[in-house]
Amino acid sequence: MSWEQYAAKTDGVAIIPAGSCEQHGSHLPLSTDSIIATEISRMVAEQIDGIVLPTLNYGYRSSPYSGGGPLFPGTVDLSLNTMVELASNLLDELLADGFRKILFLSAHFENQAPILEAMHLAQRQHGTDNQIVLANWWDPLKSSVMDEVFSDITFPGWDLEHAAVTETSLIMHLAPELVHSDKLPAKEAFTVPPYLRVPLQTSDIPSHGALADAVGATAEKGKIIADAAATAIAGICAYEFGVHMKTSVKL
Amino acid sequence: MSWEQYAAKTDGVAIIPAGSCEQHGSHLPLSTDSIIATEISRMVAEQIDGIVLPTLNYGYRSSPYSGGGPLFPGTVDLSLNTMVELASNLLDELLADGFRKILFLSAHFENQAPILEAMHLAQRQHGTDNQIVLANWWDPLKSSVMDEVFSDITFPGWDLEHAAVTETSLIMHLAPELVHSDKLPAKEAFTVPPYLRVPLQTSDIPSHGALADAVGATAEKGKIIADAAATAIAGICAYEFGVHMKTSVKL
Amino acid sequence: MSWEQYAAKTDGVAIIPAGSCEQHGSHLPLSTDSIIATEISRMVAEQIDGIVLPTLNYGYRSSPYSGGGPLFPGTVDLSLNTMVELASNLLDELLADGFRKILFLSAHFENQAPILEAMHLAQRQHGTDNQIVLANWWDPLKSSVMDEVFSDITFPGWDLEHAAVTETSLIMHLAPELVHSDKLPAKEAFTVPPYLRVPLQTSDIPSHGALADAVGATAEKGKIIADAAATAIAGICAYEFGVHMKTSVKL
Amino acid sequence: MSWEQYAAKTDGVAIIPAGSCEQHGSHLPLSTDSIIATEISRMVAEQIDGIVLPTLNYGYRSSPYSGGGPLFPGTVDLSLNTMVELASNLLDELLADGFRKILFLSAHFENQAPILEAMHLAQRQHGTDNQIVLANWWDPLKSSVMDEVFSDITFPGWDLEHAAVTETSLIMHLAPELVHSDKLPAKEAFTVPPYLRVPLQTSDIPSHGALADAVGATAEKGKIIADAAATAIAGICAYEFGVHMKTSVKL
Amino acid sequence: MSWEQYAAKTDGVAIIPAGSCEQHGSHLPLSTDSIIATEISRMVAEQIDGIVLPTLNYGYRSSPYSGGGPLFPGTVDLSLNTMVELASNLLDELLADGFRKILFLSAHFENQAPILEAMHLAQRQHGTDNQIVLANWWDPLKSSVMDEVFSDITFPGWDLEHAAVTETSLIMHLAPELVHSDKLPAKEAFTVPPYLRVPLQTSDIPSHGALADAVGATAEKGKIIADAAATAIAGICAYEFGVHMKTSVKL
Amino acid sequence: MSWEQYAAKTDGVAIIPAGSCEQHGSHLPLSTDSIIATEISRMVAEQIDGIVLPTLNYGYRSSPYSGGGPLFPGTVDLSLNTMVELASNLLDELLADGFRKILFLSAHFENQAPILEAMHLAQRQHGTDNQIVLANWWDPLKSSVMDEVFSDITFPGWDLEHAAVTETSLIMHLAPELVHSDKLPAKEAFTVPPYLRVPLQTSDIPSHGALADAVGATAEKGKIIADAAATAIAGICAYEFGVHMKTSVKL
Repeated sequence: MSWEQYAAKTDGVAIIPAGSCEQHGSHLPLSTDSIIATEISRMVAEQIDGIVLPTLNYGYRSSPYSGGGPLFPGTVDLSLNTMVELASNLLDELLADGFRKILFLSAHFENQAPILEAMHLAQRQHGTDNQIVLANWWDPLKSSVMDEVFSDITFPGWDLEHAAVTETSLIMHLAPELVHSDKLPAKEAFTVPPYLRVPLQTSDIPSHGALADAVGATAEKGKIIADAAATAIAGICAYEFGVHMKTSVKL
Repeated sequence: MSWEQYAAKTDGVAIIPAGSCEQHGSHLPLSTDSIIATEISRMVAEQIDGIVLPTLNYGYRSSPYSGGGPLFPGTVDLSLNTMVELASNLLDELLADGFRKILFLSAHFENQAPILEAMHLAQRQHGTDNQIVLANWWDPLKSSVMDEVFSDITFPGWDLEHAAVTETSLIMHLAPELVHSDKLPAKEAFTVPPYLRVPLQTSDIPSHGALADAVGATAEKGKIIADAAATAIAGICAYEFGVHMKTSVKL
Repeated sequence: MSWEQYAAKTDGVAIIPAGSCEQHGSHLPLSTDSIIATEISRMVAEQIDGIVLPTLNYGYRSSPYSGGGPLFPGTVDLSLNTMVELASNLLDELLADGFRKILFLSAHFENQAPILEAMHLAQRQHGTDNQIVLANWWDPLKSSVMDEVFSDITFPGWDLEHAAVTETSLIMHLAPELVHSDKLPAKEAFTVPPYLRVPLQTSDIPSHGALADAVGATAEKGKIIADAAATAIAGICAYEFGVHMKTSVKL
Repeated sequence: MSWEQYAAKTDGVAIIPAGSCEQHGSHLPLSTDSIIATEISRMVAEQIDGIVLPTLNYGYRSSPYSGGGPLFPGTVDLSLNTMVELASNLLDELLADGFRKILFLSAHFENQAPILEAMHLAQRQHGTDNQIVLANWWDPLKSSVMDEVFSDITFPGWDLEHAAVTETSLIMHLAPELVHSDKLPAKEAFTVPPYLRVPLQTSDIPSHGALADAVGATAEKGKIIADAAATAIAGICAYEFGVHMKTSVKL
Repeated sequence: MSWEQYAAKTDGVAIIPAGSCEQHGSHLPLSTDSIIATEISRMVAEQIDGIVLPTLNYGYRSSPYSGGGPLFPGTVDLSLNTMVELASNLLDELLADGFRKILFLSAHFENQAPILEAMHLAQRQHGTDNQIVLANWWDPLKSSVMDEVFSDITFPGWDLEHAAVTETSLIMHLAPELVHSDKLPAKEAFTVPPYLRVPLQTSDIPSHGALADAVGATAEKGKIIADAAATAIAGICAYEFGVHMKTSVKL
Repeated sequence: MSWEQYAAKTDGVAIIPAGSCEQHGSHLPLSTDSIIATEISRMVAEQIDGIVLPTLNYGYRSSPYSGGGPLFPGTVDLSLNTMVELASNLLDELLADGFRKILFLSAHFENQAPILEAMHLAQRQHGTDNQIVLANWWDPLKSSVMDEVFSDITFPGWDLEHAAVTETSLIMHLAPELVHSDKLPAKEAFTVPPYLRVPLQTSDIPSHGALADAVGATAEKGKIIADAAATAIAGICAYEFGVHMKTSVKL
C-alpha cells in the first residue's frame, strides 16, 4: 500500500496487529502471535474495508503462566514502558494522519496492560473525538465455536491455551510449513500457584514450554477459529465504529 | 516501629500493602483496597513475624470492568510508569537495607502488571539472591472458604467482585464505621464486552459503581475471608521464603 | 468517604498529606512525618470544610542534615523523579475531577523540590485557572507559638529539628503509643559542614539519628504546635483560596 | 523457528532487520524499508548461518530530505527515545540469551542515531565481551556495483536515493507485486537547503514523495544490489565476528 | 586545554561550575550565576591544581523567592529531571575518564536538589570509591568575611541575597563591564509568604527582580567575597579530597 | 544583557550556540566546538540584531568517525535523551517568553539528531506559529569560500574535517592563545569502515585524535570561514525569518 492509498482510507478503521517474539513450545514458531495477529487483522480489514498497519513483532514481557516466561531462550520481550511508548507513538501518528477509528488486534495477552495505558494517555492528550478498541482474538469467540473446536477434546481454559490446541490449530491453518508436527507437546501436569514470584524457575512449567496439550489440533479447527475471530472482531468494529460490514454477523 | 526495630528484622519478610484510591460504590470508602491490604498484611506479619511497610495508598489506573474506571470522581489513579517506578524504588531500598524476602500484598487487581514489572526489573538489576512475591488477597482463598461465604448467595465470579459481597464484608469486619449500610447496591444487570475501549462511557456500568450485588455481605463473612486470606498468604511465605509460621496452614 | 461524598466537595479544598518513611531516632516511628501530615491535614480540613486525600506514605530521599539520610535502615525513599511523577499524577487526577483548590501539606522537608516541580508542570499543562499551595507545617508557625514551646529549652533552629522537640512533642500528642519515651535522645554535638557530599558517612551525625535534643518534649507542646499549625494553614487556605474558615485566625 | 532452534544458534550472529513505515512515493509500499531490511537480512543469514529476528516494522522519525518527512500521511514514525528503548530492549534480551554477535541491518537512514545510542548504552551496561554492528545496506556497496546499476542513468547521490532507482529496483526484485509500475515518479527539481527547520512545508519536496527519478529501475538491478549488499554485509560479519562465510567475498 | 592535558590531571579534582540563565535585576546580566561559578571555580582550581570543566550555563527552575522565578523574561530554566540527567551524564563521563574527586561549584541555589540527586544516583551505580562534593559559593564564607562586607550596610539574609549586595559586588569585580551601575535597585519592601504556590504572581516581588538592596555593592567587596569563597572551597577540597593546597587556609 | 534588554528583543531572533566538550587533537582545546558556535553566533546576532543565549557547552555523544569518539579522555558527552530534553526545555522557555524565531547554531555534528527531535516535539506541543532553524556552521558555506580556503591544500571532505584545517583555522582566528601550534597533527592514514560498531577501538583512528591533516591552517583562513559562515547563516535568518540584515548577502 502506497501513501496515497493509505491517505484515501483515513475515514475507515486502522488496524494494528500486536504480536510477540515468544517461545511457543517445540512445535510452533517464535512468531506465532505475530502471525495470528497479522492474518486475523487482514481478514477483519477485508470485511470492514479497513487498513492493516505493519505488525508489532515484539510484545510486552511474557509471563510464566501465560506464555512460559522470559527464561526461555527466544522469548525476546519489550519492557512495560517501551511497549506503552511504542503504542502511544502509533496512536499519536494515526490520529495526526486523521484516523478516528483505531483497532489494536492482539494475539499476546501481556500486551493488554501497556496498550490500554497508551489508549488512556491518548485520550488525555488528544481528547475524545476518536475511538480506540483493543481486542484479543480469543475474547469474542462465541461458545458455539469453542464447543465445535473442543468437541472431541477437553478445553483447559484460556489461561493455559499457550502453544496448545487453539494456537497450534491456527498456525496449522495460517502457516502450516512452520509447524513441527512431530513435536506436538505431550500432556505434562503442573500447577499454577495462586501468586507471582521472581526469580522465575523454569522447572515449574513443562520443559517444552506449552502450557497444555496440543494433541487434537488440526488445520480445520484453525480455520474455524480464525474465521470466527475475524468475523466477531469485524462485528465489534461495526458496532463500535459504525462501519459497514461485508458479511453480516451476530455478536 | 523505630529504625532500630526495623533493622532487627531484615532477616525476615518485608510486606508492602498495595491499595488504591478508587470508587467502591456508594457504600464503601475510596480507601477500601488500602484498608484491606493494610489489615491483612498486619495479620500475615503477625503469623510469620514479618514487618509491614507503609501502605501504597494509590494504585495503578482503575479499569472499568474491574474497578469502575477513572471516570468516577474519587478514583485517583497513578499512571502505569509511575506505579512501576514507585514499586521499583521500594524494592531498591529494601534490598539495600538487607531484606531478601519481600511480599507485595495487593488488594487492587490493576496493581499486578506494574508491580510484576518492578519485580522483573529488580531481578535484572540486583541479581537473584532474593525472593519477591506478589499475592492478591483473593487468589489463594480455598474453595471451602468461598463455599462458606457464598453458602446463601451466588458468587458472580472474581471479575465482578468489586464493591460486592467480599469487599463489603471485609470492610464491615475491618472498618465497620466506614460502611454506609443503607446504601448497599441493588443488583443491576450490565454486560461486560469482550474487548476494551476508550473513551470510557459511564453508562456501561451500574451508576453506583459496584459491579455486583453486595446484599448478603456481613462482618462475619468478612472475618472468615480476612482470616483465610491471611493464613493462606502466611502459608505462601512459609513455602516460598522458608520462614516459620506461628499457625499451621495447608495451602 | 465514598465517591459520592467526594464528588460533593470538589468546589472546596483537596488536601494531600505528604509524609515519608524515614528514621526518626530510636524513640519515634518511621512514619512520624506521615502521621503528622495526616493529622494536621485532618484538622485543617475540619476548619475549612475540605477533604483529605490518602497520605503519601513515602517521600523524596532523606538528606543527612535534615533527616539523617538514606544510610539508616528503615529510611525507605523515593527518587526525585518518582516523587515528581507521583505528585503530578495526583494533580492531574484532582484537576480532572474538578478541584481548583489543592493543598499539599508536607511534614518532610525534602518533599519540597519535587512537589514544587509537579506544581509548575501542572500549571504548564493545565493552565492557571487553578490554585495549588504547598505548605510545610512548620513554616507558618508564629513566633509566639515558638516562644511558648521553647520557653524552658533552647530552639536549635528548624534545620536541626529532626526527631527533636517539636516532632517528638507532636507524636506524643498525636500517637503517644508509638513513642519510646525511654529512648529520648541525649544531646550529641556534631557539625553540619557547609557543603554536601557523597559517599555519606553515618559517623558524621548522632548514632541515634536525631539531630537535636528531644528532652523537654511533651504532649502538651505537641497539642500547641498541632493546633497552631493547623490554624495557620487553614488561614493560608482562607487567604489564598477564598474559602470560609470556621475559626477566625490571624496570619 | 522454534525456541529450541533459536537456542542452538546463540554462538552465531543474531540479525535484527530495522525498517520503517514511511512514504516511498506513489509507486512503492509504505513497508519498502522493512521489506528490504528483512530480505537482505535473510540473505546474509543464509551466508553466515545466522538467525534473523523479527523485523522492526517502525523506525525513527522520517526526515524531509532523506525520507520525505512526517507530513506525508502513512509515514508512521517512532520518537527518538522510543526507538532507543526498543533497540535497547532487544540488545538486553539477546545478550541475556547468550548472543555475543549482533547485527542491526537497517534500511532506513534515520534509524542510525537511536540504534547507535542503544549500542553505546548496552556497552556501558553489559561490558565489552560482545560485539554489535550496525550496517545500512547501501554503505558497503562497492563502486563497481554502483557503476553497473547506474551504467545508463545518473546517480543522484545517496542523500536523494529515496524511493528512487535503488529502492525501486530492490522492491521490483524482492516484492514485484507491490510496485505500482505505472506511477514511477517523473523527475522534479527541488533544492535541499543547507539547514533544517520546522514547521515542515510539503511544498519543498516533490509532491509524490520520491526525492529522485526512479526511471531506469529494473528488477535485474534490484537483484544486483540485493546480492551485492548481502554479500558485503556477510563479509563484514566474517571480518568483525570471525564467523565462517559460505561464499567468499572481498570487502 | 587539550585532551592530553586533561588526561594528565585525572588524579586531581575536576570542578564543574553550575550556573543559570536567570534574571538578576535590571542591573546585572542573565549570566550572573554562570560568571560567578566559572570565575570562582578557576580560582579554586588554581589553588589546588585542579581542572575546570565547561560551565553549566543553564540551571534548575528559578524559584520566586530565591531568584525571582520563571515569570521574568530571560529566566531560561531547565526542568528538574533534565538537570538531574545533565549532572548524571557528567558524573558518568568523569568517572569513566578516571576522576575520583569531583566538585560541583554552584552559584544558583535551585541547582542543589537535582545535583544532589545525581550524586546519589552516581553512588548507587558506580559504588563508593569516589568522592563528590557540592558547594555553593556562599555557604562556607566565614562570618568575619560577612562582617567586613556588611560593615556599613545591613545583611538581609542569604535568602534575599539575589541580585543584591553580594552578587552585585561579585560582578563588579569579575565582569564590571556587564553591570548597569545606573540601575542599582532601590529598596522595595515585600513579604515572603511562609508557603509556596502556583500560579506565580509577579506582583509579589519587586518589579526589578532584585530581592534586596544592592546599594553599597563595590568591586572591592566583590574581590573580598570571591577570594574568601575560593579559598574556603579550596580548603574543603583539601579536607575532603586530601589534595595539596597552594595557599594555607583555615576552614 | 539584563532581563529587560532581553525582553525588548523577543520580536527578533534568539540564537542558541550548541557546542561540545570533545577531544580535538593534541593542538586544539576541548571547547573548540563551543568557542566556534559562540563566536559565530555573536557575529550572526550582530548582523540581524538578534540575541545570543548562553552556549550549550556539552553536546551529544561524539562518534568515532566524526569526532574521535567517547574513548578519548576529555570527551565529556551527554546521552541522546538528555540532549533532547535540554534542547526541548530551551525551546519551551523561549516560546513561553514570546520568541517566535529561534536558531540553533551548532558546531558539533552529533547534536543534529537530538536538536531536530526537540524541534519536532516543540512543534507537536506548541503548534506551528513559530519557526525554528538548525544550522551547522559548515553546511551553508559557498564553494567559492571552500576553494579559497583549500587553494593550496586538499580538502579531505567534511566527514574528516575534525580538528583539521577548518577548525584549526577557526580557533587560530577566534582564540589563538588556545592553539598548541607546535602540535599540529601530521597526516596519518586510516580507513573509515562502511558500518558502525561497539566496542570502539581507539587503534582505528589516529592516536592524536585529529581525523585529517591540520597543516595549512592559518588565522587568515579562520577569518574567511568565520565571516562567510556568519554571513551565510545571517542570510538564512533573513530568508526564513524575514528579519532585516545589516549586510547584504547572497545565499
